Amino acid sequence: MSERTGLAGEAEELDAADPLAAVRGEFVLDDVTYLDGNSLGALPAHVPGRVEDVVRRQWGELRIRSWDESGWWTAPERIGDRIAPLVGAAAGQVVVGDSTSVNVFKALVAAVRMAQEDGAAGADGRGSGGGGSGSGAGAVRDEILVDATTFPTDGYIADSAARLTGCTLRPVLPAEVPSALADRGERTAAVLLNHVDYRTGRLHDLPALTAAVHAAGAYAVWDLCHSAGALPVGLDEHGVDLAVGCTYKYLNGGPGSPAYLYVRRDLQHRFDSPLPGWNSHAEPFGMRPDYAPAAGAVRGRVGTPDILSLLALEAALDVWDGAGVSVAAVRAKSLALTDFFLRCVGAYVPGGRAESLTPAAHAERGSQVALRCDGAGDVMKRLIERGVVGDYRPPDVLRFGFTPLYVGFADVERAARVLAETLTG
Amino acid sequence: MSERTGLAGEAEELDAADPLAAVRGEFVLDDVTYLDGNSLGALPAHVPGRVEDVVRRQWGELRIRSWDESGWWTAPERIGDRIAPLVGAAAGQVVVGDSTSVNVFKALVAAVRMAQEDGAAGADGRGSGGGGSGSGAGAVRDEILVDATTFPTDGYIADSAARLTGCTLRPVLPAEVPSALADRGERTAAVLLNHVDYRTGRLHDLPALTAAVHAAGAYAVWDLCHSAGALPVGLDEHGVDLAVGCTYKYLNGGPGSPAYLYVRRDLQHRFDSPLPGWNSHAEPFGMRPDYAPAAGAVRGRVGTPDILSLLALEAALDVWDGAGVSVAAVRAKSLALTDFFLRCVGAYVPGGRAESLTPAAHAERGSQVALRCDGAGDVMKRLIERGVVGDYRPPDVLRFGFTPLYVGFADVERAARVLAETLTG
Repeated sequence: MSERTGLAGEAEELDAADPLAAVRGEFVLDDVTYLDGNSLGALPAHVPGRVEDVVRRQWGELRIRSWDESGWWTAPERIGDRIAPLVGAAAGQVVVGDSTSVNVFKALVAAVRMAQEDGAAGADGRGSGGGGSGSGAGAVRDEILVDATTFPTDGYIADSAARLTGCTLRPVLPAEVPSALADRGERTAAVLLNHVDYRTGRLHDLPALTAAVHAAGAYAVWDLCHSAGALPVGLDEHGVDLAVGCTYKYLNGGPGSPAYLYVRRDLQHRFDSPLPGWNSHAEPFGMRPDYAPAAGAVRGRVGTPDILSLLALEAALDVWDGAGVSVAAVRAKSLALTDFFLRCVGAYVPGGRAESLTPAAHAERGSQVALRCDGAGDVMKRLIERGVVGDYRPPDVLRFGFTPLYVGFADVERAARVLAETLTG
Repeated sequence: MSERTGLAGEAEELDAADPLAAVRGEFVLDDVTYLDGNSLGALPAHVPGRVEDVVRRQWGELRIRSWDESGWWTAPERIGDRIAPLVGAAAGQVVVGDSTSVNVFKALVAAVRMAQEDGAAGADGRGSGGGGSGSGAGAVRDEILVDATTFPTDGYIADSAARLTGCTLRPVLPAEVPSALADRGERTAAVLLNHVDYRTGRLHDLPALTAAVHAAGAYAVWDLCHSAGALPVGLDEHGVDLAVGCTYKYLNGGPGSPAYLYVRRDLQHRFDSPLPGWNSHAEPFGMRPDYAPAAGAVRGRVGTPDILSLLALEAALDVWDGAGVSVAAVRAKSLALTDFFLRCVGAYVPGGRAESLTPAAHAERGSQVALRCDGAGDVMKRLIERGVVGDYRPPDVLRFGFTPLYVGFADVERAARVLAETLTG
């Protein structure tokens, strides 16, 4: 038996033994091997019917009554509570709405304000839930640290948040955050980090980095775009202060579905939003000229939520209610898929033609594999023509995302095989 | 013939002669008299099919390819160009996305920055398209004026914009804006006004107020939520600097459909967004760590657009392509509807039971009628039970919105009749 036949056979066995294999049937998929769910998740098969009901009945027939009767008004916090368990948060701390960029802005400005308020109070005002020892009590906190390898929008928005709050932005590699904080952490107000690097798929150490931020008396803001729905996050367990994430990747919410914001419960009364729209008012229909913020996660809302996109997302989240579907099960399969892909690539692709940028250690790996290769943009075009859909990130990276809910081991073997044929053909 | 029979008969004649009467057939309506289109527009009948195609085919089958192949990526500016003619703007100046609140924030912060830049330049830097004479050249512009009767979110967001840019917020009645500017206009950076008052339906004098703002060397930001799609706005003609508006009222885009931002062409190169997300980058897929803003209206984009809501809006705008449908025709019918409603109320409702807050003069009237009456909240509940849907705004206002595309004169007569019966029953 050749190596090729061996891996194909092994894929068959792995698929047969996969406890999540049946979930694939809940998605609309064809004969394409879809490894771009880390950019846009596939369509859950029951979503079109739900969207049709929202449009035809809720909007078309009930019209304005649906704000109450169809639960439109409370959708941002209700759907937030559906996402909460997927990121390790108790209910009441996640609200859905706006884009990831807008939520990064809310979170960072609010974090800086809390840090500066702590300083003005001359004491560790972070509250009992904070992990920091308040080493910098009384200092002027006027620096924001941002992951130097971040998805660009986080950096652009962090720069704007810094400019508007009188802070300096300091890009730092995630691994160097502890030493940067040791250097002048008493000046640090907030640190914005990515849980998983969008380009390399590297998983950063959220518990340790959050602890380091807290030890410096600063606030940790995590971007979960490339981790939520693919691996355990543990926001509550690790004492994360604020977090944001998108819902159209591993949560399959649909193109441009709204993002979410997590504000840890004991910080919510101090969450001072730079976007205090009427939806976050304590009494939104009081139409009062003065702003009074609502209690709880609702304080993170801004304007009227985009109901069609929101309710498509709500429907998509039903997939997580299925028997045996859990973040733990997804993570186990994700690691098995990426392990198997790395093995298949190693076996099929001639040495030196594609180098993995994704860490071999499980503790450092998200749910994607990034391969550096010459002419990556052109290679990806040819892969897509042959039915293997990943994506390309400049200058030389092929990205393959593995959504365990619908990607199987045969997909993995096929992708590696077609890649090898493309590179050697 | 009784007065009642007379008005009902007149309604029938008016409907028979209405050039827009046939457009009603393009909407999903039942036997309810729907006078709440100024809160949520009715569903255009062709929208569900279009949304289904977006979900099933574009998302479900093409998946990630739709960003290019289905035109998702360019939707914000493409749909902006569909809205532009409805607000009197040439193409390339309107972009769709985010909520009205978020767009108010972008516009106001950008306006303050331009005003302060003008001051720093020590000359009238507003450019040839600006209406202002630059009387305050070199002065510190650190005040934002806001309509004191504004829909609350604009005031909350203006307060946040003022706080983040080191300005003071000064609430002023629209009628008093000219005298406020005469008082200390050299300090004014930006003025945020509503074209139509959400509560009373009063139409403000956009040309004269914009000219007054320009004469003071400040920037005019207009909120068009209650005027766009109901009456002519004339953004280009009147030299408005920046404008925002929602799309779910008279534009029938659906619940929470995204808002839009207008930036006058000659100001676009100076538009310095406080929310510089990756979608507004000159080269968004370059994934560069440094921000470089795109040219044109695209500079107003932020994060990934919510495609489902956006494309439902795009479909809804097709109604405006119909034969005979124009802003001028809509405005003519709107005034005829509100005139007729005021006449019917005058004829049916006993004197003193409901007082109109909406100006009698056409030049001062939007497309709604607001009636002040005792127990308005309870009265509206009873109207809705009887199939006449308007809404209630505290403390004592009944609002009736007239969307000329689907409201007829028989609806108007019925609403006034049921109101009279409710008030006297």
